[in-house]
Amino acid sequence: MTDKNGAESDGKTASSPKEVKIVFTPSGRQGQVVTGTNLLQAARQLGVDIDSVCGGRAMCGRCQIDVGEGQFAKHGITSSAASLSAPSSSEARYAEKRGLPAGRRLACQCVIQNNLVIDVPATSQVHNQLVRKAADNREIALNPPIRLCFIEVREPDMHEPSGDLRRVIEALHTQWPDRVKGEVSCAVHVLQSLQGCLRKGKWQITVGLRDGQQIIAIWPGLKTQILGAAIDVGSTTISAQLCDMNTGEVLAATGIMNPQIRFGEDLMSRVSYGLMNEGGAGEMTKAVRDGLQQLLEGGAKQAGCEPEDVLEIVLVGNPVMHHLLLGIDPIELGGAPFALAIDSAAEMRASEIDLRLHPGSMVYVLPCIAGHVGADAAGVVLAEGPQNREDISLLIDVGTNAEIVLGNKDRLLAASSPTGPAFEGAQISAGQRAAPGAIERMRIDPETLEPRFSVIGSDIWSNEEGFADAIKDTGITGICGSGIIEALGEMYLAGIISAEGVIDGNLASRTDRIRANGRTFSYHITDTVSILQNDVRAIQLAKAALHAGFRLLMDKMQLERVDRVILAGAFGSYIDPKYAMILGMVPDCPLDKVIAAGNSAGAGARMALLNTDQRRAIEETVRHIEKIETAVEADFQNHFVRAMAFPHKTDPYPFLSAAVSLPPRDLSDNVASEDNPGRRRGGRRNRNSA
Amino acid sequence: MTDKNGAESDGKTASSPKEVKIVFTPSGRQGQVVTGTNLLQAARQLGVDIDSVCGGRAMCGRCQIDVGEGQFAKHGITSSAASLSAPSSSEARYAEKRGLPAGRRLACQCVIQNNLVIDVPATSQVHNQLVRKAADNREIALNPPIRLCFIEVREPDMHEPSGDLRRVIEALHTQWPDRVKGEVSCAVHVLQSLQGCLRKGKWQITVGLRDGQQIIAIWPGLKTQILGAAIDVGSTTISAQLCDMNTGEVLAATGIMNPQIRFGEDLMSRVSYGLMNEGGAGEMTKAVRDGLQQLLEGGAKQAGCEPEDVLEIVLVGNPVMHHLLLGIDPIELGGAPFALAIDSAAEMRASEIDLRLHPGSMVYVLPCIAGHVGADAAGVVLAEGPQNREDISLLIDVGTNAEIVLGNKDRLLAASSPTGPAFEGAQISAGQRAAPGAIERMRIDPETLEPRFSVIGSDIWSNEEGFADAIKDTGITGICGSGIIEALGEMYLAGIISAEGVIDGNLASRTDRIRANGRTFSYHITDTVSILQNDVRAIQLAKAALHAGFRLLMDKMQLERVDRVILAGAFGSYIDPKYAMILGMVPDCPLDKVIAAGNSAGAGARMALLNTDQRRAIEETVRHIEKIETAVEADFQNHFVRAMAFPHKTDPYPFLSAAVSLPPRDLSDNVASEDNPGRRRGGRRNRNSA
Repeated sequence: MTDKNGAESDGKTASSPKEVKIVFTPSGRQGQVVTGTNLLQAARQLGVDIDSVCGGRAMCGRCQIDVGEGQFAKHGITSSAASLSAPSSSEARYAEKRGLPAGRRLACQCVIQNNLVIDVPATSQVHNQLVRKAADNREIALNPPIRLCFIEVREPDMHEPSGDLRRVIEALHTQWPDRVKGEVSCAVHVLQSLQGCLRKGKWQITVGLRDGQQIIAIWPGLKTQILGAAIDVGSTTISAQLCDMNTGEVLAATGIMNPQIRFGEDLMSRVSYGLMNEGGAGEMTKAVRDGLQQLLEGGAKQAGCEPEDVLEIVLVGNPVMHHLLLGIDPIELGGAPFALAIDSAAEMRASEIDLRLHPGSMVYVLPCIAGHVGADAAGVVLAEGPQNREDISLLIDVGTNAEIVLGNKDRLLAASSPTGPAFEGAQISAGQRAAPGAIERMRIDPETLEPRFSVIGSDIWSNEEGFADAIKDTGITGICGSGIIEALGEMYLAGIISAEGVIDGNLASRTDRIRANGRTFSYHITDTVSILQNDVRAIQLAKAALHAGFRLLMDKMQLERVDRVILAGAFGSYIDPKYAMILGMVPDCPLDKVIAAGNSAGAGARMALLNTDQRRAIEETVRHIEKIETAVEADFQNHFVRAMAFPHKTDPYPFLSAAVSLPPRDLSDNVASEDNPGRRRGGRRNRNSA
Repeated sequence: MTDKNGAESDGKTASSPKEVKIVFTPSGRQGQVVTGTNLLQAARQLGVDIDSVCGGRAMCGRCQIDVGEGQFAKHGITSSAASLSAPSSSEARYAEKRGLPAGRRLACQCVIQNNLVIDVPATSQVHNQLVRKAADNREIALNPPIRLCFIEVREPDMHEPSGDLRRVIEALHTQWPDRVKGEVSCAVHVLQSLQGCLRKGKWQITVGLRDGQQIIAIWPGLKTQILGAAIDVGSTTISAQLCDMNTGEVLAATGIMNPQIRFGEDLMSRVSYGLMNEGGAGEMTKAVRDGLQQLLEGGAKQAGCEPEDVLEIVLVGNPVMHHLLLGIDPIELGGAPFALAIDSAAEMRASEIDLRLHPGSMVYVLPCIAGHVGADAAGVVLAEGPQNREDISLLIDVGTNAEIVLGNKDRLLAASSPTGPAFEGAQISAGQRAAPGAIERMRIDPETLEPRFSVIGSDIWSNEEGFADAIKDTGITGICGSGIIEALGEMYLAGIISAEGVIDGNLASRTDRIRANGRTFSYHITDTVSILQNDVRAIQLAKAALHAGFRLLMDKMQLERVDRVILAGAFGSYIDPKYAMILGMVPDCPLDKVIAAGNSAGAGARMALLNTDQRRAIEETVRHIEKIETAVEADFQNHFVRAMAFPHKTDPYPFLSAAVSLPPRDLSDNVASEDNPGRRRGGRRNRNSA
């Protein structure tokens, strides 16, 4: 005996229908159903979200479930595999062809015959219920903009003439009533292939349905996988994660150098290039789009797919990258008043930014927050979620401009600080990018003033056995951003530099690592790598800007401290929170609350890729962020000047002081600072006096 | 004294505001307003639609009004020019620069000071209220999809950072609250030029707002004219009307031969070309799109504009043209079941069909009705409006397939009949297209059987003086469709051919115009132009198909007669209703109710171009039209066989009989026909017996 869904049911149940109880875990949803009901339909009636692409035809295998066995006292029922109909022939065929784990059933093929507890495994859930872990261990709820819907379409009938598209839409409505929202439209490129596709698929096709109302793609027969790409367009590197849009799984992660680098290393040099060269902005736009295309083709290949399988792209990037990518000349971002062309999210066809993927591919770009706080910062906010928390988060993404966001569920503020490229190793005599051979960690013995250090590419410290061997391929080529931060922190702790950042020439008598260098002094780590007084100044300027930025936002919120600090981006992953705090790059707080978040911007992009609710959420959040332009804030200058020194000398850093043996605080200096009108709460009060 | 609108008002009124009465004509809207109110604002408050592009800045001159002078007993008030404030300096500047007719005022500059009757001339009205006459004398209500909105945008402010687009949208909301509907989006190409445009226009720009929510174009400063194009893509010719989207005025009317002709003269030969040649459909798509581009460029030039001024296009065409234009292979239309890819309206960017116009240009394509009843027929329905009438209309558009629509406000039916190309002069020995030199009118003396005729290019009949002179440039080159219809009708009236269409060889003894031609006979109009028996047969086949088509629809509606017949298309304009009725190409009805409508399809396209309500209306109408596929209707074959003869011989044609002296009806034949199950109401009853 076979019901209309092709599932076999035994005669007894069919002949005497009765009400039974069914409980779904982990959702806990439950209800009474009549025996003979199809399990997938029962689940839907109870609002239990079980995935399906083929629409109940035992083809896609997405609706797998496990049956609870035994007595469930909590629910007052006994459940067993025998409470479901035996596997149908279609289900047996599926198990034979694709395999089914022991005990697993296809819900679409099961008929309910008695009380049941059904467990829906994570891989069979799809909507908001589900959280899955991706490569970087973040949990992302799925609610993708595009859903694959397999349909069987009525053949044309001369007695009742209608267009093929009408019957496709009719099939969507009847076979996927939960997925269709309102009037369904169809892209022209789909229309062009519709008739051939229907006939090739023998009136069975898979529709790519976007937002429940746009047919953006079709395939003959059953199609079960399409890709989406979350892309972080950085000034230096562009990284992409290609995901299965149906499962959220990251199938490929890939990156390339931003091809715009040939137009200038940092952002402002690229803005200048556009300004100085007719058509320069257009060249840079073409370069970054070509780079994206190359990246996506490589990523698709890595995922075992074709570029035509990419249907959705989410992009984040700083404002200049954002504008250049969209073909907007970033000239206005190069000078006051730093007006963005658009500060809301943007959606467009991939072909509009010259990407050659599936013709139905769409691009969603997260909103920029302000002229120097980009869509990448919006991605960080989305990933770290300060707007969903009671405690106060400070998010810092260090680059040529540091992007800073402060606040909690009640209020969020954002600003950028012009840190310049010193943290990236530029403007430092022995500075270099983070690459093999660069000093990245460093300690100084406070007695002997001797340094020990390690270089990128090796875990062995310079005073340990095997160091020379470990670095024989690279040598010691310079010092990178995280290295110089540790070097300055250690020099301060060892008394080599004062709270004001002056290298103490008197110590030259104790060690020849300190040597005169014109009218100033320098500290020599190796024969070729040394820290000059000018290097200290460059880092002081950069960290003072950063400090002044978050200090200004803390003033605005009348905060003395924050509850946690998130360091986003690659740079944030490499710096030691202790040294960052000693230099004042972060405010005082428990060291374990300073968190390196890695590529948060990319993680935010992936969240937006896989869940349209997150898009609406971040748009709403960004709309309500208070944008602070540091350039017009008198307090920023006050903070900046004051922040040149090592901050614990003037401000209390109780958590840091408890964790690290710091030089004694200079109380006279501290007292003097109380007169400074720019400090803390005073900032708001004294704005007009500036 | 100057109010905030820049209009001067006298001190008296301003100091003692009082309620006065204002009446607007022709709308009749009226109400009480307080003195000191701006006239344009008062009009809007009362729901009186006065046009404006510049938003009340005395720049566009669209809001011109006339003041009623004298006593208006009907309204109980006296009105005079003195009841409005004196012209403001802005208004005086406008009058000086652009001119204002005597007595005309700019409503935006007028302040109400006393009771008033205001006449809003047609040229100042815009919304649904307004009907204007276009080139072909049809009245079209205006409600265009795109509106030009001049706005002043706030400059960026670092103290309150926001993107330029946000301030543009804000300006639209505050300065054009009536025009903005919901959330406003912005095309990427607009974003790309937004910042430059704002700065070039000194923060004054004109926005092209589509559907009240999409910014599809911007211009620095004031832009007052954009174009739309209504295009009828015929198999033979493509014609376009370029209109001012703001006034509805037809600025240019232009046409070209369809470049697809090189792939085949008629539709089916083009479908075959696509079938027989790899990539053939693509070649034809490219050809017709290239033709459209050329047509639009020529039209824009003729209108004194640029192709970039074209923002909106509406297209109609038969199903094969429709599909090829959209890049859909028409192969399915070449054979049963004749399935359209899409039978609803389609909207897309002009760039998606390779038109190079304004980057924001959109294309709207009217819906096809059925596999052989195209968007051109939908255009005819829209233009002729049978769905809005009580009486029964029969719309016929003769081509290779005749498209037939029958019905009234309660019910509409549509079908097509395979007439073939005979009416276009093909398959006729001396047949030719309607071109100079072709015989188009003809009479035969029933006594002498001598013909007289006229040819295209001259009004002089062949028996009149000066005829030889009049045709000396062209000669007599053949006979066109309307000519052969008159020839056959006259031959029948003169007794040269029988009711069954046989040329009577016995008459060869009376005149040498009738000559043996193998086993049949022919009638010689000139030395080179004659009507062969085969020519009569070809026309009989064509007109029988047409007759069977409308007869079938009349059966379905259980109708014996129709109230009016609309002959659409160029061919319909040239045939004489009398002869069309004698041949049975139209049903019997008063001759003055057979109306040649000219290019109705193009008129329908223009209505849809200028009024989005009409788009929704025709979509709704088409959805409810009953589609009849003649190929599967047994009654069609019965009607077809029967309709080979001259119809009044078998069917009563009382109106025709009263107007024309017809050969006597053959009653025996008529009686015999009562047994034919396919006739009239019997059709429905006997369908199963076929």
